[in-house]
Amino acid sequence: MKNTIEVCFTPHAFPLLPHEDRLVVVIDVLRATSCMCTALHHGIDKILPVASIAEARDFQSKGFLVAAERSAQKVDGFDLGNSPFEYMKPELKGKVVVFTTTNGTQAIRVARNAYKIAIGSFLNLSLLSDWLSKQNRDIILLCAGWKDFFNLEDTLCAGAIATKLDATDKFETIHDSTLAAKYLYEKAEGDLYKFMENSSHFNRLSKLNLYEDMKYCLTPDTAPVVPVMEGNYLVHNGHK
Amino acid sequence: MKNTIEVCFTPHAFPLLPHEDRLVVVIDVLRATSCMCTALHHGIDKILPVASIAEARDFQSKGFLVAAERSAQKVDGFDLGNSPFEYMKPELKGKVVVFTTTNGTQAIRVARNAYKIAIGSFLNLSLLSDWLSKQNRDIILLCAGWKDFFNLEDTLCAGAIATKLDATDKFETIHDSTLAAKYLYEKAEGDLYKFMENSSHFNRLSKLNLYEDMKYCLTPDTAPVVPVMEGNYLVHNGHK
Repeated sequence: MKNTIEVCFTPHAFPLLPHEDRLVVVIDVLRATSCMCTALHHGIDKILPVASIAEARDFQSKGFLVAAERSAQKVDGFDLGNSPFEYMKPELKGKVVVFTTTNGTQAIRVARNAYKIAIGSFLNLSLLSDWLSKQNRDIILLCAGWKDFFNLEDTLCAGAIATKLDATDKFETIHDSTLAAKYLYEKAEGDLYKFMENSSHFNRLSKLNLYEDMKYCLTPDTAPVVPVMEGNYLVHNGHK
Repeated sequence: MKNTIEVCFTPHAFPLLPHEDRLVVVIDVLRATSCMCTALHHGIDKILPVASIAEARDFQSKGFLVAAERSAQKVDGFDLGNSPFEYMKPELKGKVVVFTTTNGTQAIRVARNAYKIAIGSFLNLSLLSDWLSKQNRDIILLCAGWKDFFNLEDTLCAGAIATKLDATDKFETIHDSTLAAKYLYEKAEGDLYKFMENSSHFNRLSKLNLYEDMKYCLTPDTAPVVPVMEGNYLVHNGHK
């Protein structure tokens, strides 16, 4: 029997889907899950995602290294922001980073009762898809979106993963959201960056001159890791 | 200043959008809003949308003509179902029809606090778009979806309307959902029926042999009316 693969466009819609027995992939391409993949790929030991700034401050006061972003900008007083390039620094190797962002960490929280949570982005597209195809589980690709609204980049990434899983012939789909994500990816695939130029978050990040971040985050397979939640921590699952 | 045009994929997401001052177009292509356009175009006087079967029964006991559909089928004991061809009958001219469906009438209920509610489908695409472009209002295209999930056909219709309004240069868009709907319509436009073949509701209706209903509902401009809510009733707004 085939497993199901479904795309959920927003954390707001997620509770409508049965998910306790499913593997949920959280996707926040610009930029939380791209940062997470980059961090674990570049040797950061563990990430502790927290939903609120208050929790983040609490961990900082206990001596943790803390990354905090809201509305695309680093929150004043914290150690790191939400640019993937910050997570490549050699001095971060082996460290634990506490992490809170506008959408990505909220999506992880919404999915906390799922069978398992993994992290997806374009940066780990092929390795993640390969790993997912071997799990014998129903899968939900959960787009973090933007403040509970649909966004284009997470949907394109979900479409890319769904397309790869479809090709294995091990999965089937019920919801039209999955079909739409694949159609959109098919349309965008030739030039993701150009396709993204009219999107809301591209405009938001352009105003902050974050073009290099966006280019990096839209480049497939540059951080081949499979981050999974174990207890409260996001860790490298060892799959290469 | 330009007005905004936004696509909302599901009634579930609708409360997230400010809407009290906006004109909301409810779209349920297969088949509620296609039936509504057909009915008013063929001379039915008024439609009274109700959300529950219980309300529908209550009206029937008072002598009203009642249409009721759930899960794509006519509910036993009612006068009419959800096939647009039923609403072309000459004996229905001048009548009032009470109407309840799985998704369409629920979407109307969700939008009840909007400035105004109009009804959209492929059947009134050009006339509706022309009328909308002259209202000087922010517009939300509300897809009825399927039991609070995203569906393809309503999104394609919303994409078609948004594309036509874009061409007037009077509107702007913030949300990526609007962009995605336009991209999907662009991809589907050449052959809507073929594009729909993999969708969930196409499969649901195919099992009931409703191919003719689907072909009709995907044919633009065959019922050129602009149905609007006035009080509790849906009426022809007189625009031709």
